[in-house]
Amino acid sequence: MKNIYINSTDHGFGTANIPFGIGSCRGRVFAATRIGEHVLDLSLMAATGAFLSTHGFDPLTLQQPFLNAFIAQGKEITSSVRKTIQEIFSRQELPDALQLYPAEEVRMHLPLHIPNYTDFYSSREHATNVGIMFRGKENALMPNWLHLPVGYHGRASSIAVSGTPFHRPKGQSKRDEDPAPVFGPSRLLDFELEMAFVIGKGTRMGETVAAEKAEDYIFGLLLFNDWSARDLQKWEYVPLGPFLGKNFFSSVSPWIVTLDALEPFRCPGPEQNPPVLPYLHTSGNHNFDVALEVSILPENGTETVVCRSNYKYLYWNMCQQLAHHTVNGCNIEVGDLYASGTISGPDEGSYGSMLELSWQGKNPVPMNDGSVRRFIEDGDTVILRGLATKDGCKISFGEVCNKVLPALP
Amino acid sequence: MKNIYINSTDHGFGTANIPFGIGSCRGRVFAATRIGEHVLDLSLMAATGAFLSTHGFDPLTLQQPFLNAFIAQGKEITSSVRKTIQEIFSRQELPDALQLYPAEEVRMHLPLHIPNYTDFYSSREHATNVGIMFRGKENALMPNWLHLPVGYHGRASSIAVSGTPFHRPKGQSKRDEDPAPVFGPSRLLDFELEMAFVIGKGTRMGETVAAEKAEDYIFGLLLFNDWSARDLQKWEYVPLGPFLGKNFFSSVSPWIVTLDALEPFRCPGPEQNPPVLPYLHTSGNHNFDVALEVSILPENGTETVVCRSNYKYLYWNMCQQLAHHTVNGCNIEVGDLYASGTISGPDEGSYGSMLELSWQGKNPVPMNDGSVRRFIEDGDTVILRGLATKDGCKISFGEVCNKVLPALP
Repeated sequence: MKNIYINSTDHGFGTANIPFGIGSCRGRVFAATRIGEHVLDLSLMAATGAFLSTHGFDPLTLQQPFLNAFIAQGKEITSSVRKTIQEIFSRQELPDALQLYPAEEVRMHLPLHIPNYTDFYSSREHATNVGIMFRGKENALMPNWLHLPVGYHGRASSIAVSGTPFHRPKGQSKRDEDPAPVFGPSRLLDFELEMAFVIGKGTRMGETVAAEKAEDYIFGLLLFNDWSARDLQKWEYVPLGPFLGKNFFSSVSPWIVTLDALEPFRCPGPEQNPPVLPYLHTSGNHNFDVALEVSILPENGTETVVCRSNYKYLYWNMCQQLAHHTVNGCNIEVGDLYASGTISGPDEGSYGSMLELSWQGKNPVPMNDGSVRRFIEDGDTVILRGLATKDGCKISFGEVCNKVLPALP
Repeated sequence: MKNIYINSTDHGFGTANIPFGIGSCRGRVFAATRIGEHVLDLSLMAATGAFLSTHGFDPLTLQQPFLNAFIAQGKEITSSVRKTIQEIFSRQELPDALQLYPAEEVRMHLPLHIPNYTDFYSSREHATNVGIMFRGKENALMPNWLHLPVGYHGRASSIAVSGTPFHRPKGQSKRDEDPAPVFGPSRLLDFELEMAFVIGKGTRMGETVAAEKAEDYIFGLLLFNDWSARDLQKWEYVPLGPFLGKNFFSSVSPWIVTLDALEPFRCPGPEQNPPVLPYLHTSGNHNFDVALEVSILPENGTETVVCRSNYKYLYWNMCQQLAHHTVNGCNIEVGDLYASGTISGPDEGSYGSMLELSWQGKNPVPMNDGSVRRFIEDGDTVILRGLATKDGCKISFGEVCNKVLPALP
């Protein structure tokens, strides 16, 4: 047995967390969990028979380049596997056969094959802010917004994992002063601070998911950056919604934090008034208190935190989002991602996008190095982080961190 | 050798067509082509070595439940395989080992795993009609419409093959006279007559597809019915576009007709004025003359053709759609579907949806049995058909045919 001491509580990757991801190191790709500053190879752990006590668990599901097959086994199995890992680490000694890598030596990959991706628009503060800017104060919140969780289909193919750089997108835009649209690199590149939940159980076409049962279909959550090109979006989005202003790139954090791990952080959401239709009714607490922040790291500079928000601000909770999505019989698939929409809070420092933080560029956001940002510049790295804290228990979502490269010639 | 006589020219499944699909019969699932009234098992044909002359062809790609791997081999290979099939059938005798099934004994399946699905909005007549109804004559065509092929992401999971019935969707809607939204079965269920092209060659994130090269990435086309719940759509679609009004169900014809087969049917598209930006410029003919029609078959009734249109009416061609979709670096994947949007023509009989044919229900559409339709009723079967004809050569797209069942309780 190896004697290990894992001082992980402070970082949010202690035994209370045990998230799931896909890593690679020294030529091997493996299903993994993170514990403190280390990454554990779960495929090797499964091969040693560590999870034999989990009835029905298939060790081959941890030997694949995505977690879909593992997750698809169902929560009874995945929760039991997670519990076994917690027990082994709680004993502070590991069987010799287990392989722990220093986290900095492991490259993390996209943890899922993502069959479908939907983006909601569930922060009242964000919808109001954007509404004021695009349509004026009178039409800020559309008439439907308080009655249903507005959402739209996003692009699954261009979702990448934290660490992946991307080039500033090009496209058509038209400023009020332009007589005709122009083509070129986006001038108004933005992040959107979001979280996304991961589907762990699919449905058949025609089936619905009741709001009260929705958590049975949700495996866990990760951080989501819904990168946006505001100038492209503004020109294209009427009447069929965002398209090229979004689908050039989106990014996720590598670790999926399970709903089990988030249990202590349940909290009530905002009061919903007018009352929701019966199919959207939920009882109990389905919001989660997860502190979120966004930093901008200029090239050769230091980080400036530009936003501090919280997942708990969302007006529409996950269960309502999923119940709404499926109420017409739309089927869902294991690995689907459902993103929250930008999570803005009530005060200006909690706005989850540069569009709101700089109020369409009118209020430059000061950076530590004396420069300012209205939108994201070439060479900037944007970092989203999430951390739930309660009674000494910390659960980290890690980060999603991407550098913007100049537009390709 | 079997002596066969295939009187297929009249039906559009002669040797000039040779489309690709996935069929099953007597317990076997197989890649297939259709010739006259017969379906040929291509997996068996490949196993006999029929395609040995095609350098680099992998026969295992025809032994899978989807055509993606076959298509991904590239046009040089798929075109050569198709040519070999044409040669064998032109000789009017088949090697004994080949298996031909009567078409009525073969169940056809969804031919593709569809990683991503986008719906364009490329018929000027359709966009104008809908614009007049939803926003009035002054705002009918939005300012962006003549500058870019407007599109939005659709739902890939709920695309099914012809023959699949589905239940009328339920959801929220709000008529002008309703004080608040109500929940229930859609009252305004509609079809949309569309075609979709299939991606045969993927790109990496950041890569663009030039309009002039776009056909290199397109394997073929099929018929697409973009089923729509107009009341759900109207209430939800501002500001982020259609969502539950569309994603309950979409359907495709089972046979993918190759671009090769459509070569004789090229024709010019509508004149584009104002001139398009350089990245959308195409030379030569990229529209195709394919006659399209829509029938409604009431339960225990007879078919009424309610629409006759043509794929050639589209303002934006496939090459422009794909160039636009990728100009921001959005990556595409083999098997992706890109649908045209409703294909309406210039006259009232050529409108591709009930919304337009009945002009929002104001002008009931007469049926053969003396009844009328404003929208689609429970028990109705909607059938889309496509046929290209020129100089005695006929290429059929077959049909996409779905019955509407009552909403689930």
